[in-house]
Amino acid sequence: MRILILHGPNLNLLGRREPEVYGRTTLAEIDEALGRIARKAGCTIECVQSNAEHELVERVQAAMDDGTDGIVINPAAFTHTSVALRDALAACGRPFVEVHLSVPEAREPFRHESLLADLALARVSGFGAHSYNYGLEGLIEHLKAAASE
Amino acid sequence: MRILILHGPNLNLLGRREPEVYGRTTLAEIDEALGRIARKAGCTIECVQSNAEHELVERVQAAMDDGTDGIVINPAAFTHTSVALRDALAACGRPFVEVHLSVPEAREPFRHESLLADLALARVSGFGAHSYNYGLEGLIEHLKAAASE
Amino acid sequence: MRILILHGPNLNLLGRREPEVYGRTTLAEIDEALGRIARKAGCTIECVQSNAEHELVERVQAAMDDGTDGIVINPAAFTHTSVALRDALAACGRPFVEVHLSVPEAREPFRHESLLADLALARVSGFGAHSYNYGLEGLIEHLKAAASE
Amino acid sequence: MRILILHGPNLNLLGRREPEVYGRTTLAEIDEALGRIARKAGCTIECVQSNAEHELVERVQAAMDDGTDGIVINPAAFTHTSVALRDALAACGRPFVEVHLSVPEAREPFRHESLLADLALARVSGFGAHSYNYGLEGLIEHLKAAASE
Amino acid sequence: MRILILHGPNLNLLGRREPEVYGRTTLAEIDEALGRIARKAGCTIECVQSNAEHELVERVQAAMDDGTDGIVINPAAFTHTSVALRDALAACGRPFVEVHLSVPEAREPFRHESLLADLALARVSGFGAHSYNYGLEGLIEHLKAAASE
Amino acid sequence: MRILILHGPNLNLLGRREPEVYGRTTLAEIDEALGRIARKAGCTIECVQSNAEHELVERVQAAMDDGTDGIVINPAAFTHTSVALRDALAACGRPFVEVHLSVPEAREPFRHESLLADLALARVSGFGAHSYNYGLEGLIEHLKAAASE
Amino acid sequence: MRILILHGPNLNLLGRREPEVYGRTTLAEIDEALGRIARKAGCTIECVQSNAEHELVERVQAAMDDGTDGIVINPAAFTHTSVALRDALAACGRPFVEVHLSVPEAREPFRHESLLADLALARVSGFGAHSYNYGLEGLIEHLKAAASE
Amino acid sequence: MRILILHGPNLNLLGRREPEVYGRTTLAEIDEALGRIARKAGCTIECVQSNAEHELVERVQAAMDDGTDGIVINPAAFTHTSVALRDALAACGRPFVEVHLSVPEAREPFRHESLLADLALARVSGFGAHSYNYGLEGLIEHLKAAASE
Amino acid sequence: MRILILHGPNLNLLGRREPEVYGRTTLAEIDEALGRIARKAGCTIECVQSNAEHELVERVQAAMDDGTDGIVINPAAFTHTSVALRDALAACGRPFVEVHLSVPEAREPFRHESLLADLALARVSGFGAHSYNYGLEGLIEHLKAAASE
Amino acid sequence: MRILILHGPNLNLLGRREPEVYGRTTLAEIDEALGRIARKAGCTIECVQSNAEHELVERVQAAMDDGTDGIVINPAAFTHTSVALRDALAACGRPFVEVHLSVPEAREPFRHESLLADLALARVSGFGAHSYNYGLEGLIEHLKAAASE
Amino acid sequence: MRILILHGPNLNLLGRREPEVYGRTTLAEIDEALGRIARKAGCTIECVQSNAEHELVERVQAAMDDGTDGIVINPAAFTHTSVALRDALAACGRPFVEVHLSVPEAREPFRHESLLADLALARVSGFGAHSYNYGLEGLIEHLKAAASE
Amino acid sequence: MRILILHGPNLNLLGRREPEVYGRTTLAEIDEALGRIARKAGCTIECVQSNAEHELVERVQAAMDDGTDGIVINPAAFTHTSVALRDALAACGRPFVEVHLSVPEAREPFRHESLLADLALARVSGFGAHSYNYGLEGLIEHLKAAASE
Repeated sequence: MRILILHGPNLNLLGRREPEVYGRTTLAEIDEALGRIARKAGCTIECVQSNAEHELVERVQAAMDDGTDGIVINPAAFTHTSVALRDALAACGRPFVEVHLSVPEAREPFRHESLLADLALARVSGFGAHSYNYGLEGLIEHLKAAASE
Repeated sequence: MRILILHGPNLNLLGRREPEVYGRTTLAEIDEALGRIARKAGCTIECVQSNAEHELVERVQAAMDDGTDGIVINPAAFTHTSVALRDALAACGRPFVEVHLSVPEAREPFRHESLLADLALARVSGFGAHSYNYGLEGLIEHLKAAASE
Repeated sequence: MRILILHGPNLNLLGRREPEVYGRTTLAEIDEALGRIARKAGCTIECVQSNAEHELVERVQAAMDDGTDGIVINPAAFTHTSVALRDALAACGRPFVEVHLSVPEAREPFRHESLLADLALARVSGFGAHSYNYGLEGLIEHLKAAASE
Repeated sequence: MRILILHGPNLNLLGRREPEVYGRTTLAEIDEALGRIARKAGCTIECVQSNAEHELVERVQAAMDDGTDGIVINPAAFTHTSVALRDALAACGRPFVEVHLSVPEAREPFRHESLLADLALARVSGFGAHSYNYGLEGLIEHLKAAASE
Repeated sequence: MRILILHGPNLNLLGRREPEVYGRTTLAEIDEALGRIARKAGCTIECVQSNAEHELVERVQAAMDDGTDGIVINPAAFTHTSVALRDALAACGRPFVEVHLSVPEAREPFRHESLLADLALARVSGFGAHSYNYGLEGLIEHLKAAASE
Repeated sequence: MRILILHGPNLNLLGRREPEVYGRTTLAEIDEALGRIARKAGCTIECVQSNAEHELVERVQAAMDDGTDGIVINPAAFTHTSVALRDALAACGRPFVEVHLSVPEAREPFRHESLLADLALARVSGFGAHSYNYGLEGLIEHLKAAASE
Repeated sequence: MRILILHGPNLNLLGRREPEVYGRTTLAEIDEALGRIARKAGCTIECVQSNAEHELVERVQAAMDDGTDGIVINPAAFTHTSVALRDALAACGRPFVEVHLSVPEAREPFRHESLLADLALARVSGFGAHSYNYGLEGLIEHLKAAASE
Repeated sequence: MRILILHGPNLNLLGRREPEVYGRTTLAEIDEALGRIARKAGCTIECVQSNAEHELVERVQAAMDDGTDGIVINPAAFTHTSVALRDALAACGRPFVEVHLSVPEAREPFRHESLLADLALARVSGFGAHSYNYGLEGLIEHLKAAASE
Repeated sequence: MRILILHGPNLNLLGRREPEVYGRTTLAEIDEALGRIARKAGCTIECVQSNAEHELVERVQAAMDDGTDGIVINPAAFTHTSVALRDALAACGRPFVEVHLSVPEAREPFRHESLLADLALARVSGFGAHSYNYGLEGLIEHLKAAASE
Repeated sequence: MRILILHGPNLNLLGRREPEVYGRTTLAEIDEALGRIARKAGCTIECVQSNAEHELVERVQAAMDDGTDGIVINPAAFTHTSVALRDALAACGRPFVEVHLSVPEAREPFRHESLLADLALARVSGFGAHSYNYGLEGLIEHLKAAASE
Repeated sequence: MRILILHGPNLNLLGRREPEVYGRTTLAEIDEALGRIARKAGCTIECVQSNAEHELVERVQAAMDDGTDGIVINPAAFTHTSVALRDALAACGRPFVEVHLSVPEAREPFRHESLLADLALARVSGFGAHSYNYGLEGLIEHLKAAASE
Repeated sequence: MRILILHGPNLNLLGRREPEVYGRTTLAEIDEALGRIARKAGCTIECVQSNAEHELVERVQAAMDDGTDGIVINPAAFTHTSVALRDALAACGRPFVEVHLSVPEAREPFRHESLLADLALARVSGFGAHSYNYGLEGLIEHLKAAASE
């Protein structure tokens, strides 16, 4: 089972940027923790961070052909502005989980709408770096259940 | 560590009601699974379902004095209509996780607003019965981290 | 054929409360008239009034298992505020008719939206106590037609 | 007692147009059924269908002088667009019942507002062709009650 | 100088319809009064009432070629619903005055928007039948001033 | 018969300010023309211009006791912002006509709402300086009719 | 003179819940203070707190027959969500004063609308526990004035 | 293959009305050009212009029975106001192309919403008279493709 | 303790203006009653009425330096339109109570928003002239409590 | 004559992505078809697809200096989100046609607004891959007409 | 070159009022600094502060005739409420710069709209007292450039 | 002191693109002028233009570590669409000034909202190329004042 982990814009700053909002864990530490979960479940993960919308769009497109079974994505700022990312995820057709470090509905009003939510398999927010972990675990569980049907 | 699990209106029907939306797991099975997670983590849980807003409100109030450390709540229909439940949770002051079986943002427009979201520690939705599991695990993790600070 | 008649909050006051809006017929008289219609059509009816949302929700839930074929409901104030009642009616899956004594669209703006309308088989309003009668007759007609298909 | 039955635009297609929405009964069959109800109640009815707003407006105006006691109207598309029909009904001053074959609130958003509802004696929707029957019966009942006051 | 007087839907009822809102003067009396004003000013007027949108549209179209210098129009219900009448008036290119018997802004909210107002030379409302008189006088004054420039 | 003519803020600039919108007539010329109309009708007028909201409010208040029978007011910018002027006119209780040189509905969106319109006897706009004349004539007509009732 | 004091949901927590918002006075202390005011004015009061909407609705209904002359109500969360409570108060027909400990308009946007305000005799907010006192004093004053008319 | 060409209100003025917006081609010239395209493709066309909503509605209704395979319609003002025309097109069930001479989204805000767009096979706007040509060519292409499937 | 009483525009008319809305008490009588309350509490009051926004603004500014401890203000029409008065009250920094004779939320929609509410210590409305009394008493109580802390 | 063909994000997937919405034609096939049309008309085309907003922006900028006479653009997701692309097209000043494979107004609400529509020469949507063809033909026609003026 | 400096309501409090928002510089100090800039540039300035809308309106009107070349205005609260000031500035016709001490868009929502912005030559906000300096310098630069054209 | 100057999309066209809106100065000339101001103040500036959101985002991120003291940014189209740029500026934590050549509030409605305004130290718009100069001068002034505190 192959799972793609996508990190949106500014997440490369994790651990440094507004730690009272986003926590002190770095992106490398998050990716490591996800790696451990994946290995335990017998999955492969690939982690990609980009500040460029088209790089994320094209990585999602590539997932149509490279054996990816599902996606965990923290779209960050693109949650609210990228119809192109939404279109790529819809075209790709793989189940994806939308994760956020903090609860977007508790922040500025323009963060209350998500352009991805109605397409997502599931959403996890507010557990800091752990949001990714539960997102990955839930996705693996879902893929196993679907596979065994 | 004591954690309260609250199930809102119509969740007593789980497993029977629109299973294509909510899955086939019953509430008893959910509570059992949560029990296993709690035991493994050395926690106590208490599970309450009610179709009555005031019973949920009063159970949350009671949590101020009975040693409850945190709450996992699936407020169901009350997510969108109960200011009283919000006020009780705010008064209670314990961290709570809001969970949903399906993704509310993918359903009718009147389900896109949550009266609890901006107070919640975290939110999990879309994993069916597993949403509760990740909600509970995340809450335990959070309480342990807070305790060890 | 078994039909459930549900009366929402404050309808126990019928005949006394603002008679220029709601007429002078009491709830008992309405239930009697409905009983006559039912008997003539060879149906059984059960009439329930409650000011408590959860009692109506639970009566609707029970209708899933007690042989109820359809529901006539005057949700009164809950028309505009109860997502829980909506969810119960959707879960129950029996056809229901929404009735109102007066025309809600001719009253305060907050009464112009119904949380039940898009799920209802039919709606009748404005005929005072007779709204119930036509609601029941139409529901019986519908159930007979469906049965004979 | 004389009652006018008005059918708005496209209702001449009844029985042919989107039968899964509007049923298979034709307008002639509806008018016949109404005729039977009227005869039984000792009333006269006149049935008019028009796709032209001004013909309906003028038929309503004529009702001021031709002994019409009440109107049953299915305004169809004009429900949402014709202030002229509303003005004619207000000027005419006869009680009228607004009927619809299906429930407009369960269809497209632009069908949720009625320009006539707040002037109507009553509204019936969702019973297919039977909506007319209950509308006519309720109107007759109302006129008899008013006459006997 | 030739001026066209247009009366929209239901104005044929004037003097009979809701006299407390619209006054007791009939349309014939209004047209006569306008005739006297026109004669005194050395103008010709033609008065047309119609309940049909297309008849008003076509009469306005005809005004492009029949020597009409200006229009006084009480669009009644079409004020708020007829883009076609607006387009005809724009295409015609003659100055027009929009008149109303009562003040539309003091009536139902859906009468507060006019589809013609931003194209009109001027607007007069609230003087009952006299609204027409001032509308005609003002238009004549305007045309004379424009002619003498 | 005594009539008060009120001119709102910036109208002292008339003839100089944006003449392509407001025309070239000065306020003095408008007042003179109104004087001629009043004299012919056997009325007295008093003309007041002020850029200060409170001066207009207090002049309207004084009209309750000084024998004023009606008011012609061009509220200018205060049309859209002065609840105090509205309250004074309501308290005063004399019929008033709201006049505008140009058509406000054809200008910026914030000029489309009038805080006075629903209280006004009548409204005249778009005839330039003549708007006042028709407003005064209509008011005199109205007062005479009311007096002779 | 008999007056009913109603306390809405979560007010049983007073003195404990967010004291920086609601103050440190308990509900028992508030009821005592109200008792003293009532005794001094020669009135009887009855104080009821409930977290259940239907209990408040039914207590208001009962007030129609038990000699209650007026009501002081702090509807708390139900201010913004309970059409049923509004309907009960309208049906009951006794004058009522709406009181709040803090100023709702200074809190979250969903607390800015009150479903009761347009029916209330008067409103008092922001004086903490004293809001009740002034509400009761004002109501007594009003009832005495009405009685002596 | 038979195709119906429908022209909405005021299009009979083409070539004369605001040529800077709509161009100088007349309706007859447009119909001729469409005739040439149709002949080349081996199709029959019938061209109808009407300023009356009911005539367009009834022509669309007739298309259900007269062998019409598709419709090209420039609904003009009715784009934004006619639910009846929408209902007729939905009932008719033939594919239709919505064409406009200019781009409606570049004009007044009330022209930005189309009541037909979500039912249309395709939309063409902004090419002046050529919009019709591409609409017809595209429809023929579509019908041929559908026929050959 | 020094308290400033401010009366906004048109309140000089009290007792005369729409007495069915505002009661028959004059402003002088209100000020006298407030004087009695103040004397009993050992306070000094100063009462100012103005129809001019800038006079109220400057009186509030002066309160920063003249020993004023608090303000009771009935802003009347300025409640809804004066950002300047809001700014002055915020700059002044003294606690103020907003009072209204009637309940603004029960009047026209444009009176439902207050520009002062979120800054006010407290609000009292609907008790007619008594609204002032409770406002003053509550303010004195508040100032004494604050002083004794 | 040189024409630029621009394809927005995710259009590289054409033929693979949701073929029931977008058809089975690939982008290469579309470009070929456009090439044939261009050759027949004696024009040169250049086709560019990019998922990156800045690449499209810069290609449009370059069109100011490379002899481009017009642009056919399918902005895809950028239709609704890219002000930068709009600004580039406005700066470039060449006429452009906006094309879409399906009708955006028949899809999700966030696709109903186009940031380019009011600047476009014309719009074509709903003909699948043919939308491009008509867009190109119409643009060529327009450029020839403009050149021959 | 003569430039008018206008300060709106409450700016006389500068240095005292909410210094954490507005800084500690007084209005006199601001005017002095502006005087130095003006002298250096060979300009004359006149500084006026008023809390009265009509005084600002009339000062702007006077600028039409007294040789004023441009205006720097901090409209303070009137930014959001004074159509009269907007009208005066439009009538005056001199270029004006709108300045604010803090950034209005970072404050309460009702401060996000400016009634002057679309007429202003330029806007400067957020530099505290320096906002005026840059406003004046920019205006002088602009006037010199315009003069030398 | 090191200051970063950022130019958003399409600003590379300055001097060529719609010069009547943006002026004739090129970006190189602007950067030169800023260089002169910086040198005079003893500062270093670095100027970056990009049409790519991610390049701007990453340049802002880099400013966290390269000794940048403040930022002057003309975000151009990204003002209204880039949450990612906002997030980068918030994460970076350096004070920034938002500058615009023209006044955005005087242009299309979608340019009236800025996603950066509430985070900005200050905003300057409307002085053409000079907007940058004042933005830089103000920022230097601010940094010096902060440094000397």
